[in-house]
Order: sequence, then C-alpha cells, then structure tokens
Amino acid sequence: MRAPQPDLPFIAADLWGRLRERRPRVHCITNTVAQAFTANVLLAAGAVPSMTIAPDEVGAFVKSADALLINLGTLDANRRKASDLAVTAALDEGRPWVLDPVLVDRSPSRARFARTIVERQPTTVRLNRAEFKAVAGFEPEGGALMGYALERQTVIALTGAIDFVADGGRLVTVENGHPLMGRITAMGCAGSALLAAFLAIEAEPWLASTAALIAFGVAGEVAGRDAKGPGGFAVAMLDALYALEPATITERAKVQ
Amino acid sequence: MRAPQPDLPFIAADLWGRLRERRPRVHCITNTVAQAFTANVLLAAGAVPSMTIAPDEVGAFVKSADALLINLGTLDANRRKASDLAVTAALDEGRPWVLDPVLVDRSPSRARFARTIVERQPTTVRLNRAEFKAVAGFEPEGGALMGYALERQTVIALTGAIDFVADGGRLVTVENGHPLMGRITAMGCAGSALLAAFLAIEAEPWLASTAALIAFGVAGEVAGRDAKGPGGFAVAMLDALYALEPATITERAKVQ
Amino acid sequence: MRAPQPDLPFIAADLWGRLRERRPRVHCITNTVAQAFTANVLLAAGAVPSMTIAPDEVGAFVKSADALLINLGTLDANRRKASDLAVTAALDEGRPWVLDPVLVDRSPSRARFARTIVERQPTTVRLNRAEFKAVAGFEPEGGALMGYALERQTVIALTGAIDFVADGGRLVTVENGHPLMGRITAMGCAGSALLAAFLAIEAEPWLASTAALIAFGVAGEVAGRDAKGPGGFAVAMLDALYALEPATITERAKVQ
Repeated sequence: MRAPQPDLPFIAADLWGRLRERRPRVHCITNTVAQAFTANVLLAAGAVPSMTIAPDEVGAFVKSADALLINLGTLDANRRKASDLAVTAALDEGRPWVLDPVLVDRSPSRARFARTIVERQPTTVRLNRAEFKAVAGFEPEGGALMGYALERQTVIALTGAIDFVADGGRLVTVENGHPLMGRITAMGCAGSALLAAFLAIEAEPWLASTAALIAFGVAGEVAGRDAKGPGGFAVAMLDALYALEPATITERAKVQ
Repeated sequence: MRAPQPDLPFIAADLWGRLRERRPRVHCITNTVAQAFTANVLLAAGAVPSMTIAPDEVGAFVKSADALLINLGTLDANRRKASDLAVTAALDEGRPWVLDPVLVDRSPSRARFARTIVERQPTTVRLNRAEFKAVAGFEPEGGALMGYALERQTVIALTGAIDFVADGGRLVTVENGHPLMGRITAMGCAGSALLAAFLAIEAEPWLASTAALIAFGVAGEVAGRDAKGPGGFAVAMLDALYALEPATITERAKVQ
Repeated sequence: MRAPQPDLPFIAADLWGRLRERRPRVHCITNTVAQAFTANVLLAAGAVPSMTIAPDEVGAFVKSADALLINLGTLDANRRKASDLAVTAALDEGRPWVLDPVLVDRSPSRARFARTIVERQPTTVRLNRAEFKAVAGFEPEGGALMGYALERQTVIALTGAIDFVADGGRLVTVENGHPLMGRITAMGCAGSALLAAFLAIEAEPWLASTAALIAFGVAGEVAGRDAKGPGGFAVAMLDALYALEPATITERAKVQ
C-alpha cells in the first residue's frame, strides 16, 4: 500500500502539460479572503477561473465550467446557498468537484454544513488534520483515511508538512512543498482550486489529486529558493507556476 | 475614420499628468475578486478609490466622488441594488461613469441586467468581444461598433490584443499592452477603474477613454520588460503606473 | 506629557518578540478590499487571522481568538450585524478589541454606526484626523485627544504623517513610517489588525498600541529602502514584517 509508486512523478508531469494545453475552466465558490490569490494561481497555471456566488447565475457558470471548487471559508448564508446550487449543477452535469472545508475546526455550524456536503460525494476532499477530525470525528491515521474514503466514495487529500492522498484502496505520501506556504493566506485554498483543475483533465481522481499536490508542492519549492519572506514568496509562487516545466515535476517529486 | 490621429499620444500624456495632479476620487461597485487590485491600480496612478456597496451609503460615496465604475462581476442581489443606486446618484450629480459587464457571456441573467444598465447611457462601456456580443447581440465589427455607440449615446472601449475605441463618429485602435495582462485576475477590471479616473479629468469621453487605454497599455509594456511571470508582472504594473512619465506615454503610444 | 519616553522602544521590541513567539489569533471583521492583505500582514508577523462575518459562526471564532478587529469598511447590513455579535462576544470573554472606523468622513450612516460602537468601549480606536472629526465631532488636538480618550475609556491611536497615541493621561507621538504606506490599499486596515495582535499579548492597551505603531512604522521604513513603487513596497512590507528583528525596532523607533 505504501510501496514506491515510480510512475506517479511522470503522471504528474504529464497531467501538468495537459492542464496547460487544455486550460480548463474552474468555477470557485470560495471565501472573499482567498478569491484573488486563487484566481491568480489558476491563471498562472493556465486554467480559467470564475467566482460568482449569485444564485441566479451560479448554475450557468458551473455548467460552462470543467470543474468546481467548494471552499467553506467565510461561510455566510449566500455561500451556503451557492454551494448547494453549484454542487447540484456539478452532479447533474457530471463535473468533478473538490470540497475544502477550511477552518471547520473553529466553527461547529460550519462543521455540520461540511458533513452535509460530504454526503453528496465530492470527487476529492482536501483538508488538514484538524479539519479532518472536525468533519470525520476521528484522527486521520493511514488505515482510517482509506476506510473513510471508501465509505464516503471520495478521495481524501490530507495536507500538512507531509501530504497524504487516499482513496478506498491506495494511500501515498507527498513530501513536496515549502514552509513559507503556511505564511500566505489562501495558499491552501488556491491549492484546492488547482486540484479541481487537475480533476478536469484526468478522470481518475486519486491520480489527479496526487498529481495536483505534487505539482503545487514543487512550484512552492521553486518559489522558495530565493524568497526572503512571504511577500516575495507569494509573487514567486505565481511565477513558478507560470514557468513550471513538466520535467521539473518529474525531477523533484517526492511521492511514495 | 481610421486616419492617423497624431495628437492622441500627446493628449494621453497630458491627461496622465493632470490625473496625477488632480487625484480624482473613483467610487467602484466591483466584484470581490477585483477590489484590492483595482484599488491599488487607482492608488498607484494617484487616484483615490472607494468600494462600498451598502445601500445606505453608496449614494453619499458617489456624490463625493468624481467618477463611478460599475463592474458586474460576482453580481449578487446586493451588487444589483448598489449598481442601480450608484448610477442614479451619478446621473443626478452629472458624474461620468463606466460600465464593465465582465463575463456576461457566461451568465444570461447578468447579460439581461447589463442591457438594462446600458439603457441608462454609461459614459463609456468597456468590454471584450464575447461580452460585447452578449450585450449587443451581434459581432463587434468596426462600422457596427460606431453604430451601436451612436444609438446608445455612449463610448465603446472594446479591449483585446488590439483595443478599439468608438463613439458615434470616430474609431481608433490602440495596440499597447502586454500578454501577461491576461494572466492576472482583475487586470481588465482595474483598467476600467482607471478609465473612470480619466473621465473624471477630461469631459470629452472618447478622448478620455482612448487616453486611458493608451496609458494602461504603456504601463503594461513597461511592467512586462523584466517580468518572469504574472506574479512579478502584477507587482511591476503598480510600480510602472506609479512611476510612469507623460513622455513615456507619448513615445510608446500605438494608436491609429 | 510629551517628555521623552526612553523605555518605549525597548518595550516595543520586547512585545514584538513576544508576538512572534505567542502567535495570537486575531479575528477580523473587515472590509472585503482589505481582507487578503490584512491576513497576510498578520501571518507575516506570526499571528493567525480569521475573517468570517457569518452570524452563526462569528461568536465561536471570536471566543477562540485572542483579539478582535472591527473595521467599518464596505459596511453593509451583514457587517453591522457581525460587528455587533463579535463585540458582544469579545466583551463577554474579556478579549481586547480595536475599532477602525475607516472612511466615516465619507458616509454619515457609517459615522452614526461608529459612534454606537465607540460607546461599547473599544480597547483602542485607530483612525486618521478626518475620521476622528467625523466620530468625535471636533478636531483631534493634543489635549482634546486625551480628554476624549478619558471620557470614552479607550486608547486613541491617531495615524497620519505623525501618529499620536493617547489614553486619559498620556500622549506620545510616533514618527516611524514611509510615504508609500499611503499608496497601497488596506495598509492602515492591516496596521489596525496588527495593533489587535499586540493587544493580545500586552494587557496595558496604551503600551500595546504605541508598540504596534512603532513596529508597523519601522517595518514600513525597512520595506521602503529599495522599493520603486507601491507594488514592490507591499511585497517588501510582508517580507520586512516576517524578518523584523526586535533590535531593529529599538534602533529605529522615533517616539516621544
């Protein structure tokens, strides 16, 4: 289960090349803090973002998009409604979608809403350890992660210093990334949006999710080379995504 | 009609100088994705932004502003109401205003709303080809652009790799700009806000709109000189606007 | 009253060190324009931001935070309600909180709301001269500042080219800072959030407020050294906060 996965770096590199060619549209229901950086990460990678939460237009946007992100930050009544409508549209159209239940560990009402969204079977749920515990009710250990993914028929992308990607039968770790990624707001939120873009170009969600975390982490490493702090790092992250070559992903991927 | 317009570069340079001296206030009803970058573009150019959409204060802000931007991104019920109130205040006070019907081609309900706003005769409508077609119902070719501008009593600033600026009797092309401008979110939205700032200092809207597109495009070219990607480019764009000399506009303007 | 305060630079440096160690959580009810930069300033300094305004979760966020910021920008009905709930939670839990009544001089309805919030005795009110006049009804001169602070049982942090910090019995001036701080949106808003973070680690609010203005101004000076314009300056500001050493604060503080 944790045996080396020698082909994953090549798959990640290949998907990155496809993403830049195909330029998928990703509709993002996301918090107001994260919107601009998320849009810029998608644009830097070659994807095309949209962000409306207005109930009378969210369906049209999701239907003309290739993937959907539901991020639960700044979760007011309008975002709840938009999330419900957007998920319904994604399920109707067979679009892949990502749930990012950001900070559910700080808000019981948000955690309850996250659990109702999980029941609608997101293609991938991306979250950190504290958020997993708030949604699932237990600690995210290896076997439990796969069990939860199997039961919920989803992929779990658990991020932290080391990332874990699990579906019902597979679990890998990704160790790419840079410490400054935690010092810029919306870095994780933007990573989830990029994950949605990967789901738009690869139908196998565990592969797409793993590849997205590798590519995002490698871009973070490139960005971190010369950064003196989080300001320069955020700028360099967009430049790194824009210039990232598939070969760099193959060389630097730390996945097993 | 497409004869050389030799004085436009000088007019653009002159207006740029006036803008920096006069520091007009621009109230922006704009989408949450674009707000921060839009405010920073205005501040870098010397203008003074405000952004509220609250119904009980939007009138006071527009009345104490010199120009108004209505951008239809993330168009929820609050933004519709704020747009209506703000346009009413601008018309009452004789303030110039810009309509930017962003992404109307993705949302039928937004396109309908855009058409009602166009009927209130914006000073300038700034949009791309797909957005023009969604609002006007036909392709934006040269003669048709002028016809539409004449019928609607507005200026059309049609942006793309080449920009077109038309009123009922004149049409010019502006070829300034940089490809990275399309890789940063809100670049077009911020350009529309700068256009509103130009309308605040020059009463002839076709001249003001043309000058704004020239200045913004020239700043983009300066910003693009050393940029390695969209992150550095966005930073350099603000620095270029801040430092832009009128003489640089005269030298680099590509308008005919 | 305006006698030299030789220990303030050392106190500011000491609090800065504590802030970076303790990493306080700051909940921010702030305008949508300022959210991302505010979060990034807090993260760069080592604090942990949250930003929701949803009525069913704002109480839980404030209770699990160490300080609160109420910024009145883009003051719609949701932000009014969130502000009321958040202040109630902060008062119930004994958390320090900052009021930043941004642009109240442009909006009579916002000024009225600001006055009701001032009556709830913010730990510190941070504002500029025009905003002070709109809230207090008179010009913010030295003696009047202290009188107002005494009457309202609050600390007044009056910012401008020179900052003034007053409580009922003390008044100092802080002359740190850089002109480009006025050319980036949300710089003042983010400074108020940092002030809230200082209140979380120092119970004496006049000391904490003075220290915050010194540290923020010194970071601005460091950021301004090589900046060519507001874009690079904003990036450098985050890097300067991230790398700022307590000793630099002691050396550069201009307080008396």
